[in-house]
Amino acid sequence: MAARPKPRSGATAPLTLLGAVELRDRLASGALGALELVEDCIARIEAREAEVRAWAWFDPDHARAQARALDAHRLSGRPIGPLHGLPVGLKDIIDTARIPTENGCALDAGRVPSRDAFVVERLKAAGALIMGKTVTTELAFMHPGKTRNPHDPSRTPGGSSSGSAAAVADGMIPLAVGTQTGGSVIRPASFCGVTGFKPTFGAIPRRGILTQSPTLDTVGVFARDPAGAALIAEVLYGHDEADSATAPAPAPRLLDIARSKPPLEPVFAFVRTPGWDVADPETRAAFQELRDQLGDRMFEVDLPAIFDRAGELRQRINFAEMARYYHRYWRDGRDRLGEPTRKALEEGNATLACDYLMALDWPAVLNSGLEEIFERCDAILCPSAPGPAPDGLESTGNPIFNGIWTFCGTPAVSVPILTASSGLPIGVQLVGPRADDGRLLRSARWLYDWADSQ
Amino acid sequence: MAARPKPRSGATAPLTLLGAVELRDRLASGALGALELVEDCIARIEAREAEVRAWAWFDPDHARAQARALDAHRLSGRPIGPLHGLPVGLKDIIDTARIPTENGCALDAGRVPSRDAFVVERLKAAGALIMGKTVTTELAFMHPGKTRNPHDPSRTPGGSSSGSAAAVADGMIPLAVGTQTGGSVIRPASFCGVTGFKPTFGAIPRRGILTQSPTLDTVGVFARDPAGAALIAEVLYGHDEADSATAPAPAPRLLDIARSKPPLEPVFAFVRTPGWDVADPETRAAFQELRDQLGDRMFEVDLPAIFDRAGELRQRINFAEMARYYHRYWRDGRDRLGEPTRKALEEGNATLACDYLMALDWPAVLNSGLEEIFERCDAILCPSAPGPAPDGLESTGNPIFNGIWTFCGTPAVSVPILTASSGLPIGVQLVGPRADDGRLLRSARWLYDWADSQ
Repeated sequence: MAARPKPRSGATAPLTLLGAVELRDRLASGALGALELVEDCIARIEAREAEVRAWAWFDPDHARAQARALDAHRLSGRPIGPLHGLPVGLKDIIDTARIPTENGCALDAGRVPSRDAFVVERLKAAGALIMGKTVTTELAFMHPGKTRNPHDPSRTPGGSSSGSAAAVADGMIPLAVGTQTGGSVIRPASFCGVTGFKPTFGAIPRRGILTQSPTLDTVGVFARDPAGAALIAEVLYGHDEADSATAPAPAPRLLDIARSKPPLEPVFAFVRTPGWDVADPETRAAFQELRDQLGDRMFEVDLPAIFDRAGELRQRINFAEMARYYHRYWRDGRDRLGEPTRKALEEGNATLACDYLMALDWPAVLNSGLEEIFERCDAILCPSAPGPAPDGLESTGNPIFNGIWTFCGTPAVSVPILTASSGLPIGVQLVGPRADDGRLLRSARWLYDWADSQ
Repeated sequence: MAARPKPRSGATAPLTLLGAVELRDRLASGALGALELVEDCIARIEAREAEVRAWAWFDPDHARAQARALDAHRLSGRPIGPLHGLPVGLKDIIDTARIPTENGCALDAGRVPSRDAFVVERLKAAGALIMGKTVTTELAFMHPGKTRNPHDPSRTPGGSSSGSAAAVADGMIPLAVGTQTGGSVIRPASFCGVTGFKPTFGAIPRRGILTQSPTLDTVGVFARDPAGAALIAEVLYGHDEADSATAPAPAPRLLDIARSKPPLEPVFAFVRTPGWDVADPETRAAFQELRDQLGDRMFEVDLPAIFDRAGELRQRINFAEMARYYHRYWRDGRDRLGEPTRKALEEGNATLACDYLMALDWPAVLNSGLEEIFERCDAILCPSAPGPAPDGLESTGNPIFNGIWTFCGTPAVSVPILTASSGLPIGVQLVGPRADDGRLLRSARWLYDWADSQ
């Protein structure tokens, strides 16, 4: 298996390639200042943005001002938050007060929210630095934005959280936030070679984030490694009355759990999900090799046959809800929407209520089909995507390996441990039982470290 | 205002006309045995059922067997429950283990559940006696069942909880359980001259009850007076994981609150809801007279204009969800369904998902329009129906005064305090803020006692 790009450590590693946890520790101890770090990030962005095009909105002086305030805060002796000084990118469907949030849509050009989204409030309270707004596909759907894959600018970075994945992959920022309704965290993480983590549905409140499909929309995070994903995600978990998918629950200590040594080495269930047949031969071969190397830590299992229809039913719900939530875009400016968005809205507009309602029952059925598998493993293992980033920029790739997990609401992580012969990254997706996100991240970290040692 | 039929009290009053709370007290003290009471009820049923036709299933020996067991339980010195010995009728869409539950539908003939509904479990645990299954309209919709109004057998008792309202009104049982999706508790209570109470949406778990429209279906109760309604309702409030409309919450002490003296006499807001214009002249005159007698305890207020569309949007949701939940009836036997059911399913089948989804947002908007009114009153007051029970048996009446409150999820009570010149009862509907059901019942009991004293 080819060596993969990974976070560095050590005194001489470029700051922009360090893992988020190590950066956090240096910032917390004072070994590193927030301004020093942000200047490194700004320099990286200035050097690379013309090629990567990850940013919808970025103002270096706004970043510096926050960094100075954070350094002053630390020097004053006041307590610092768990993300103190860490620059974070936010997908441009996440409302940021007084900073443009244009949803990747011409019809929202000039849109400036007055209030921060829940996740932004949490990040600020944790001492994070809001670096800027990362590119989203149009309305977080399938019509690509301007971002290119940092590994090869002729290729897509994936989407819809295109800029968040690319900016972390390119070392512009250590952390970013995105969302997934189909495959929009896991797939771009895989194509860009970073860790993408999509929590259990309903874990992170979505107040202030563009609603596309409330039954599916899930906030996710990007980092270089699973520990970094755990670090930022745990700050965002919570309950918000405005988001009925969330419930009062104790905040899980994801980072502690992720970094802990599992009592037993994890066991993975290798699943040939629908889509396996469209995976490219090199990807199938790489997963076969992974199977051989993991030995009896992995067993193979089939998903129940009902999963064959899961993609179609997820899409039905997605498009019907999109038709309702994007109604004003359709009504006021459908000619100015990209073709994929328009076609999905046409289909959603024609969906019957009883067919939509029937589809809503499927997650319960699918999840009970998974119970028996999860009793025998720590996580399901499967590809994050059919292959590395496909050629060209007209498509963000095929979400066929992602949608069923979004539909089930199960947490998923893409772990960047495989590389194609072309040098392009291939992610390994781990999927865990709902509400056991810490354990999934621990399995992900274990796999990440194990791959390092191979 | 003409004298209305009311529960009697005192040693010589027929048992079958006593209020549930008084009966409960006599049963608890041992002054009255469960078998003695149930024999009175059985005699009443045997005398009147040919005319009233309230029962879908009734077996006097099954009732006697339960009564004997309850008497033995009490004599053994074991603690008795809050409904010990009280005979309760259950609308025949409520599953009763090993007792037919046929949903008023030819396609469910012979259907016998294996498990009790949540409310039945609660009633049994409280020591109630399950008297039998009361007639429901077909699938709890609009196609009438066989029941007639006890006050005039040429008239409808209302629906869909037809048998529950009629059986309580006729003195066959002191208490019954029904449901409301449009107007199916309040309207039959009004037509039959009993108290009907529809709690806040989500207060009583619906597990084991035929699902018609999950956004609207609400369990309700019938009794002769508001205290009786409070007595039975408080036994049913709770949380059940199988019903996502319910939430963990402390069980309210409805009877204590209902029977307490309000710190100030209640103030009512008289509202001319959509439908006022189709109320019959005598009903409008009776409410005008009520206004005059209540004096400055009542003020008049308009509902926000958005309420004009509430009925249409409620119906859209009802029919779309019905189309999904009754799909197998449509698919397997639509020719055997009544015309109203079939037409509603046709309409529901044609409803678009985005129109359905759009309608789901309305309760929040309607409820915020009510906030300002509820700040100034203890309860909204309006008619329970456009008039007394209409002539004929082909229709269960017009739910125009009921649906908007079901849609809002606000608790509602029909208080049987008015009578038409024909002698037919006319209910007064009180509607309160959500989750303040005890206070609404207290206002209802105050109004009921006040009417007695006029």
